[in-house]
Formats: sequence, structure tokens, C-alpha cells
Amino acid sequence: MSTRARKTAPTGTLLYAQSGGVTAVINATASAVIETARARKVRVLAARNGILGALREELIDTGKESAAAIRALAHTPGGAFGSCRVKLKSLEEDRAKYERLLEVFRAHDVRYFLYNGGNDSADTALKVSRLAAEFDYPLTCIGVPKTVDNDLAVTDCCPGFGSAAKYTAVSVREAALDVAAMADTSTKVFVYEAMGRHAGWLAAAAGLAGQSLDDAPHIILFPERVYDEAAFFAKVKATVERVGYCVVVASEGIRSADGGFVADAGAGKDSFGHTQLGGVASHLAGRVKDALGYKVHWTLPDYLQRSARHLASKTDLEQALAVGRKAVEFALAGMNSVMPVIVRTADAPYRWKIEAAPLTKVANHEKTMPASFIRKDGFGITPAARRYLEPLVRGEAPPPFGRDGLPKYVVLKNQAVRKRLPDWIG
Amino acid sequence: MSTRARKTAPTGTLLYAQSGGVTAVINATASAVIETARARKVRVLAARNGILGALREELIDTGKESAAAIRALAHTPGGAFGSCRVKLKSLEEDRAKYERLLEVFRAHDVRYFLYNGGNDSADTALKVSRLAAEFDYPLTCIGVPKTVDNDLAVTDCCPGFGSAAKYTAVSVREAALDVAAMADTSTKVFVYEAMGRHAGWLAAAAGLAGQSLDDAPHIILFPERVYDEAAFFAKVKATVERVGYCVVVASEGIRSADGGFVADAGAGKDSFGHTQLGGVASHLAGRVKDALGYKVHWTLPDYLQRSARHLASKTDLEQALAVGRKAVEFALAGMNSVMPVIVRTADAPYRWKIEAAPLTKVANHEKTMPASFIRKDGFGITPAARRYLEPLVRGEAPPPFGRDGLPKYVVLKNQAVRKRLPDWIG
Repeated sequence: MSTRARKTAPTGTLLYAQSGGVTAVINATASAVIETARARKVRVLAARNGILGALREELIDTGKESAAAIRALAHTPGGAFGSCRVKLKSLEEDRAKYERLLEVFRAHDVRYFLYNGGNDSADTALKVSRLAAEFDYPLTCIGVPKTVDNDLAVTDCCPGFGSAAKYTAVSVREAALDVAAMADTSTKVFVYEAMGRHAGWLAAAAGLAGQSLDDAPHIILFPERVYDEAAFFAKVKATVERVGYCVVVASEGIRSADGGFVADAGAGKDSFGHTQLGGVASHLAGRVKDALGYKVHWTLPDYLQRSARHLASKTDLEQALAVGRKAVEFALAGMNSVMPVIVRTADAPYRWKIEAAPLTKVANHEKTMPASFIRKDGFGITPAARRYLEPLVRGEAPPPFGRDGLPKYVVLKNQAVRKRLPDWIG
Repeated sequence: MSTRARKTAPTGTLLYAQSGGVTAVINATASAVIETARARKVRVLAARNGILGALREELIDTGKESAAAIRALAHTPGGAFGSCRVKLKSLEEDRAKYERLLEVFRAHDVRYFLYNGGNDSADTALKVSRLAAEFDYPLTCIGVPKTVDNDLAVTDCCPGFGSAAKYTAVSVREAALDVAAMADTSTKVFVYEAMGRHAGWLAAAAGLAGQSLDDAPHIILFPERVYDEAAFFAKVKATVERVGYCVVVASEGIRSADGGFVADAGAGKDSFGHTQLGGVASHLAGRVKDALGYKVHWTLPDYLQRSARHLASKTDLEQALAVGRKAVEFALAGMNSVMPVIVRTADAPYRWKIEAAPLTKVANHEKTMPASFIRKDGFGITPAARRYLEPLVRGEAPPPFGRDGLPKYVVLKNQAVRKRLPDWIG
């Protein structure tokens, strides 16, 4: 991390880009970035569809958006400028791309690059920064954290996670009341599929829906534990016999002892050669039905869980705004190759602050869930997990709703900046 | 419909039972029933697990619940006393059951029977009423409307539908913003599966999420129209080429020209003989992937859509409360074999009132969606549909949230009334 003190007012343009899967609050970060930069008289461009827009020189002039539109971004889910799933490789392998980025930056006088994403994005920001130094181009690169997966290193939690966690806990509590009411003659086992390919953070958040062992969710399946079908069946059966029904939350990333994703077991081709799209919940529900004979239902919320801005966590929203503001402040202070991270200073009452962490400590690391967060039997969360998770889903921050009963989400003009370079042949 | 004027204060007990699939606001109806009856000094029992509790003499004394608990019912989803999927047959076929019901009613001095459900429940209430008359047992039977399917006759809409409709429209709008942001490099086609086996009311409600042809949802598939795969593929392809992505809302009940449910095409057994649980969304997404090569995602919200009390429609809540209050008033006024129904008196501004409709007009009828609500091309809703649907999702009525960030839903004590009869051998 190199810090250069600036003596003069900031000059040059700030480029903001979104990366990877979007969240309910990534636009809140964008809103804070633009508002903070505007207050400092810094021009903000946004890359259309993330890093691709930077490579293609498809830049958006956020100066064309009204103050009201930028404010409304703070309550609008999705990714207002577009995001993408493109990971740049090493400086050696993808050198042409990194050089093209610098060329675009130079053509538009971009002196601050804010890359809003996960650990891949932190890595990209770091590499761009290194190449800029090599070329002696004055550029300050900041990684801005975001991911519903909550798997970034250093930061205590990730903006986007708290709202998805709240969606998960609330949805499981609500569906469980439905199942409980009907279990006598209808569905006895209900399976909820949570996102989380490598870490069970969202599945764990479902644990907030209940307090006692007999409260739903009765079973949580974590990717951190090997999925054991016999133990699972035994637990389902015991729960139905004791409570009358069983609510299961399964992380999409659970694996069997052979290392294969359980979700893949439910996918493939049917007898017509058509693609069968599986999923963990569908597979588990089918197996429970076959083995135990219970009536089953399951849900796959998919994108709903990461776009449910209507149910955002206030803590999450505040942190998404704070990392956006701090990212600009760090950038304008010349703090290069850092990420504003959330530091928890107390659990109860919950307190947090933003600090700058070197991107080298964030890039390409993945934070897994501590073993101490999973109950000994592997099917639930511990009090330590609850202490960690609960503040993150706390507080409500609903969007304004219109007379039509729907949230008033903003769609930006996204006016393109005139290109100054030849087309990119990438 | 027979109306007997009562000269004296009401005597006897009121029995309330929930029937069929529960909703986000059926407990609001229960809350209004109990509060209204309490104000008139009428004792309220509730049947545990719907009509089964009445047959089994498993009755709950709602008098044991505090006023605060009954008030909290109004913001708690699920079915607080339990519901069930049991349909009584004709008086001839199920005479023993109907007689058993009267026996239980007599043993507990039940003079008012309020059955909260769909058209099956209206039919049961009607038959119980007829048998009571035959036995000269003074009983007033009231059907109280409820169903997310919105398929009850006479009433303009059904309590429970508006909230599920709001959930659908909001979820589709939110997920569409997510898909739009990522479409350049990720998911291009997203499929949302809405409840509705026979009528496309909930799928239609998704249409409220967009205004123009290029707004999501781009395609709605209704059970009222034959599913034509070639036309669907062509529409998906044209939409992706024009808009960049395509959001599809499919009713679970769509059928092919051969009359079979499309959902069943995705279900069956895999090569291990394990049950494959399909679903329309999974099937359509797999077919689109195979035929058009687009990256797909899909969601099956399942019970989440009917239990999402956190996103209830204020209109729906008010109507759920109103039918509960009116049901008690009609009962105590001796209006036998009626249902309080919602009458729309104006679209804009939306106005409605409650009237009594004879159960004979509701029982065993099913209201389908008017053909005028579906666009000529079969893939969207008309302005007439919008005029009908929009007021039903209007207004927000969030539950109180706790310090833990979750809704404060009540769980009742559900204290059993001592049995007075021998066990039922049903």
C-alpha cells in the first residue's frame, strides 16, 4: 500500500465499475461513490457491464444523471451500469488487456479506478495498479467490497450479504409457518436452497429464523461438512416424528464424500436427451420422498435472494454506503491499492468502522466460515454464529413504494461518453 | 339464504376453521373474527387443522389467548390453528362425517360455524347447514373467502391473492434488474414459476412489474392458453435479440396441446430410479438452453409466494380483516349459508364494499380469468387486467420487526378444549 499525500485539489476523472454477481445494495455503494465524488467536484464515469466496458471504452457519463436519480440508486437493486463475469488473468497472460485498460484510462484522464466486487476484482485492481506504476501513469486503484457470498478476507462482512441473509432468514421463517399449518395432511418436509457454492454463510443465516431445536429450520446443510445421506434421512425422520414437519435449508454447494456436488446428482439429461436442470433442493426433496415417503415441497429462490431490495438490512445498506464514501475518500487521499473494509469493534451493542486494508491481503483469498459457527452435529448454527450474523440483518430500509404498490426503482439514462480510441479487438 | 332476525343477545359458541392452502393474511381474517366475536361476548373455538379438528373434536379455546396475541395474528402468515387438505364429499357419501360434525357442534354448543377457505369449504359449509336444518339443530354457517388462487365465484377478488400478487410483481421486478445487469456475459433467460394450477391470476400479476413491451416480464405463460413451444422459443429469441435478455413468468398449470401439464414433462425418475421433481420453470429453462443455447436461470418460489407477510398488500390485508368482521356480523344476525364477498364499486379511485352472497352461488364454482385479460399474442396482460389487478397490490402493511431484524410473528398457545365425546373412528 503506497500512500501519497496530495497537496492540491483532486484532478482527473474517477472510473467506477461493478463486477460479478450483483446484490440488493451494490447500487447503494455506487450512489455513495458518485455523491461523494460530486461533492469534491470529481467527474465520475462508470464502465458499462463492468470491466468489459472499460476494455471496450464503453463508458457512461454519470454527470448526466440528476441528483435525485443518484439518490434513488441507493434503494435500487441490480447493477445500474451493468456488471460482468470476466476475470482477468495474470499480468503475463493478459498483459494486452491490462495495457488496453491503461490506454482507455489515459484517453479519458482516469486517475482513480474504483472496482466494486469480490476477491477477483481486488486482484484485478491490484494488477492494474502495478502496471500503472510500471508505466509511471498516476493512478489510484481501490477495491470496493461486495458479495452476497460473504467470502472476502480481512473485512468482517461484505456489503450485500446482510440483505441476502435477512431475505433468507425471513423467508424461511415465513414458509415454515405455512408448512407447520398444513403438515397434518400435506407437506411434511420443505427444502430451501440457499446460494453458496463454497461457503455456507447464507445457509447459516437461515438459522436466525429459529431459536430452539424445534424451531425451523430444523436442518441446515453446509458445504463445509460432507453430506451424509443416511445421517440426513435419520435427522429428517426424527424431526418429523417429534415436531410434525421438517424444514431443511441446503447450501447449493454441499458435496458427498466422493467430492461431487449433490446438486449435480439431480441434473443431467432425461430420456428424451433434454437437459434436466437440477439443484440441491429438488434432489434432496426427491430422495426424501423416495426413502421416507413424506410429502415434500422445495423452493429455489435463486436471484430473488440477492435482489430483494424490498427486504434489505439497514446495517447492510449503511455499510454499502459507507464503503462507497470511504472508497472515494481513500482514492482522493492517494491511498493506492487498498480496500475499505468493515471492522467490527463490538458485538453488543454492535459497532463497526471502516478501515483501509491493502489489496494484497484481500486479492484471491477466500474467507470460509469458522468451524466454531457450525453445531457439533453439523445441522445447525452455534451461539457464536448467531452473535456474528444477527447484527448484519438488523434494521429495515424499505424502498419507497409507488401508488401502484411496487417499489420505485430508478433506471438511469446511462449516456455514453464519446469514444476516443479505435475499437478494441479483445 | 335464510335470514332469521334475532331479538335476543347471541347465545352459543362460534367455531372457526381454516381450510386448504394458507395465505399471508388468513390469520388476519382469524384475528378479525375473534376480535369481533369477543366484542359481542361470543365465545370462539377454533378447529385444530381445519375440518379434521372438528371431526376429531380437537378444538382450541381462543379465549386463552391475550388480546395482544389476537392482534398480532393480523400480521402473522401461515395458519395459526392449522389447516388441512380434506374435502368432504356429498351428504350421501359422507353422511357419517357430517353427522359427526353436528354431534361435535352440539356437544360444545356451537351455533355459528365459520369456515375460512375456497369453494370446497363453501360447499362443506353449505352441506353442514343443510344437515343441521334436517336435524332441526339451530346452526348458522358462513363461508369466509380465502385463496391465493383468486378463483372464487361472486367475490371480485379473494383475500390472500393481493399479497401473493404483490410478492410476484415485486420479485419479478427485482430479479429482472439483476438479470439485466448481468446479461452481457451471464444469464440471458430467467424463468419464474408462479402458482396457479388452473387459472393464471398470479402469473398475470407479474405483468404489473413492467409497463412497456421491453420491460420485464417479457413473456407470461398462462394456463388459459395452450403452450406452444415453437412460438415460445421464437418469442424468447426475439426478446433476447432486441432487449438483451428475457424474463419469463410461467404458471405452474400450463399445458401442451395434448392436454398434459408441461411441468410433468420435467418430472419422473432418473437413471437410478430416483424421483425427479420437475416444475415448469426448470423444464422451460432446460429446453431454452438446449434449443437456443442461452445461459438460463430459474426460480421456484413455492410457498414463499403465499407466506410473504412481510410484503403484504395493504388492500389485501384490509379485505382479509373486513371479511372476518363481516362474517361474524352476518352470523350473529342469523344470516345462514352466506359468504361475505368483496364487491368492487369503482376502479379509480378503487372502492369496494362487503356484501353477503349465498353459498349456493359460490360452492363448487371456479372463476377463471377473463379472456379479455390476456393479450392477443398470449404472452402478456391487457390494460383491463392491469386496471383489475393494480388496486389489489396497492399499499404496504409490513409486520413489526424485532431488534433481531426479523418479523415478530406470534405463535398461539392453542390450548385444547376438553373432549366431551368418544374418539372419532373416521
